[in-house]
Amino acid sequence: MDVAAQMMERIEALGRISEEADCLSRPFASPAMRRANDLVESWMVQAGMSTKTDALGNLIGRFHGPHADSKILLLGSHLDTVRNAGKFDGPLGVVMAIACVEQIRCAKHALPFAIEVVAFADEEGARYQTAYLGSRALTGLLDEKDLALVDANGVTMAEAIKQFGGDPARLKSCRIAGENLLGYVEVHIEQGPVLEQKNLAVGVVTAIAGQTRATITFEGKAGHAGTTPMELRHDALCGAAEFILEAEQYARQHPGLVATVGQITADPNVSNVIPQRCRLTVDLRHQEDAMRERGCTDLDKFVMEIGRRRGLKAAWRMVQETASVPCSAELSVILREAARKHQPGVIDLPSGAGHDAAVMAKITPVAMLFVRCAGGVSHHPDEAVRNDDVRVALDVLTDFVLSLAARP
Amino acid sequence: MDVAAQMMERIEALGRISEEADCLSRPFASPAMRRANDLVESWMVQAGMSTKTDALGNLIGRFHGPHADSKILLLGSHLDTVRNAGKFDGPLGVVMAIACVEQIRCAKHALPFAIEVVAFADEEGARYQTAYLGSRALTGLLDEKDLALVDANGVTMAEAIKQFGGDPARLKSCRIAGENLLGYVEVHIEQGPVLEQKNLAVGVVTAIAGQTRATITFEGKAGHAGTTPMELRHDALCGAAEFILEAEQYARQHPGLVATVGQITADPNVSNVIPQRCRLTVDLRHQEDAMRERGCTDLDKFVMEIGRRRGLKAAWRMVQETASVPCSAELSVILREAARKHQPGVIDLPSGAGHDAAVMAKITPVAMLFVRCAGGVSHHPDEAVRNDDVRVALDVLTDFVLSLAARP
Repeated sequence: MDVAAQMMERIEALGRISEEADCLSRPFASPAMRRANDLVESWMVQAGMSTKTDALGNLIGRFHGPHADSKILLLGSHLDTVRNAGKFDGPLGVVMAIACVEQIRCAKHALPFAIEVVAFADEEGARYQTAYLGSRALTGLLDEKDLALVDANGVTMAEAIKQFGGDPARLKSCRIAGENLLGYVEVHIEQGPVLEQKNLAVGVVTAIAGQTRATITFEGKAGHAGTTPMELRHDALCGAAEFILEAEQYARQHPGLVATVGQITADPNVSNVIPQRCRLTVDLRHQEDAMRERGCTDLDKFVMEIGRRRGLKAAWRMVQETASVPCSAELSVILREAARKHQPGVIDLPSGAGHDAAVMAKITPVAMLFVRCAGGVSHHPDEAVRNDDVRVALDVLTDFVLSLAARP
Repeated sequence: MDVAAQMMERIEALGRISEEADCLSRPFASPAMRRANDLVESWMVQAGMSTKTDALGNLIGRFHGPHADSKILLLGSHLDTVRNAGKFDGPLGVVMAIACVEQIRCAKHALPFAIEVVAFADEEGARYQTAYLGSRALTGLLDEKDLALVDANGVTMAEAIKQFGGDPARLKSCRIAGENLLGYVEVHIEQGPVLEQKNLAVGVVTAIAGQTRATITFEGKAGHAGTTPMELRHDALCGAAEFILEAEQYARQHPGLVATVGQITADPNVSNVIPQRCRLTVDLRHQEDAMRERGCTDLDKFVMEIGRRRGLKAAWRMVQETASVPCSAELSVILREAARKHQPGVIDLPSGAGHDAAVMAKITPVAMLFVRCAGGVSHHPDEAVRNDDVRVALDVLTDFVLSLAARP
């Protein structure tokens, strides 16, 4: 069977393994994850790998190198999903890593390093509302306090790991030593529309963008919609509207910056009363932290300016800040060269979403290859990737591994 | 006792008559309304009036004219309240009408007409979500189908009227003949900040503004807040923000128009997803219907323009349209003359809120006198009116009645 078609079949097979009958939901350490791990493990074995599952539940397949202490190249992605997920986010990278090993084995390429394919047990954080459990365990960054977190059914993370067959007391054993690693390379769907727009199958990720989440509140004065003249109003929603448009325009004027007001609530929120309070969220991302930080400063100033001008109490509250994670220039050059062989051009693009690679970067150089997805849709059953693009991605990844092997 | 102080005491007394222990709530046909009617009836009797309660529950006090068939001047307002109400909205007009009659009687002025003080049983519509039951019964406009409406406890309006001591089968008997009336004059708190802004105790109402309520929806495309470049977005909330600011600016540029976006909901309304749908309400009011209608047309066009420019599905749906009710020029001239005697200047202002006068205008000329209220606050326990302003309003109303009596 054609290798791309086989990958698609495997992704379909994983897509049928769900905790819910009518949608794809495969949370961390669930019975569905157990079945997914078992299936993926069988593919790893077919591809000539030895396998193990670590104390958290990460599945790791090893394609041995020339020596027991050969350096290791990590490939992989995650097997867990959000609720009502698409089939490709995560599984694509795992299935592709296995297919890559299979191709290298079939072609009898002798590599100077080992490959380990990691199928992370949790990236989405859907079950415990805290993400990257898998890569945090692998890098030694998982906080043991997290074991006490409970899911929606009151099951602690420690219990869930035990039920899955892991060992919450031995999480430290999951840790792998960075000094033995050549790097971590992840193939993932883009989750955005840029590659589709550029008509390219794959793109090389420059960095995983840093992110700021903040909430903004405007507080004015409620008033009767019929009896309060326009010039005497202190309308919190009008202040919010100004901010929404300014955030949009500011991001448009600063290439690479994205700013999103995703959530808005007005109070009292009835049709015949002037809004007294309005609360907004803003999400800013840029691959350069300095640009994002300047964006926050400028938009914060604008919030205050709106407040002064409109007689509103205005507040900007930081909720979360995550620094940008640059991809390895060295690995990305090789990935870019490989991509150039298989499609008319190559583009570099930042990842606006977080990935296991962002955590893995704490201990080893990382690189990522994005694959075009239909309409940029992800975290939705409509997630779709073309057969041909999967084939291109596999060729690029395999070329990348061989080029890395050929390095002096 | 000083007459203004007595009025304030009476308003306080009514303010203590509530269905709820911790806030003022006096819905239509409630036990609290019964106690309020009884108390007000006793004041009417003290002021020399004969009283009756009609089949709906409206309390009417008659100060007889020279003949049994003398023309009648109606004065009054309503005794019901919204939930968690202020003390002045409604009761002020009733208490003032009684005080006016008392003053005329004490001064032994002989009037060529009778005065009837109406204490309407329902203006706010808090119990049956349909307003103006009192004035609709009086003008013959109450739809008998409304008798089947049920309140929050499942009590039909017909039952409620019966329990109150009225007669739902005889609602037609409430109707009064317009041809016997000289007009209806209502004193009411402004429920807006204009008089406070102008530093005046009272103002003469030109019209009860017409109102349009519409809902606007924008539908774009959800997308990942981190991975969707600004130029590829179809953000429904950004479209909504443009509309909010345009509605505000449009109203500012068109004197007398007020436009309020009071309600907004975004979907999915999470911080890291581009808003797919946004639903807004807009409330437009103007004392000239043509101005309001042009406003609707222009803003509707703007909604469509936003939709086209941003690639959003846009819709404007009319929810309700109420025509403006002009006050009687003839009565208002007399009211204005009277006001001029008791304060430094007079201003005319439209009423942005609805009033019993708007319904009474169907059968007789109407006029309204607004009284300054603190901060324009109404429908709230903070509702407040000054003693001195109450005295001015009473003087103006009494002068008005005497001037009307002195007309050739």
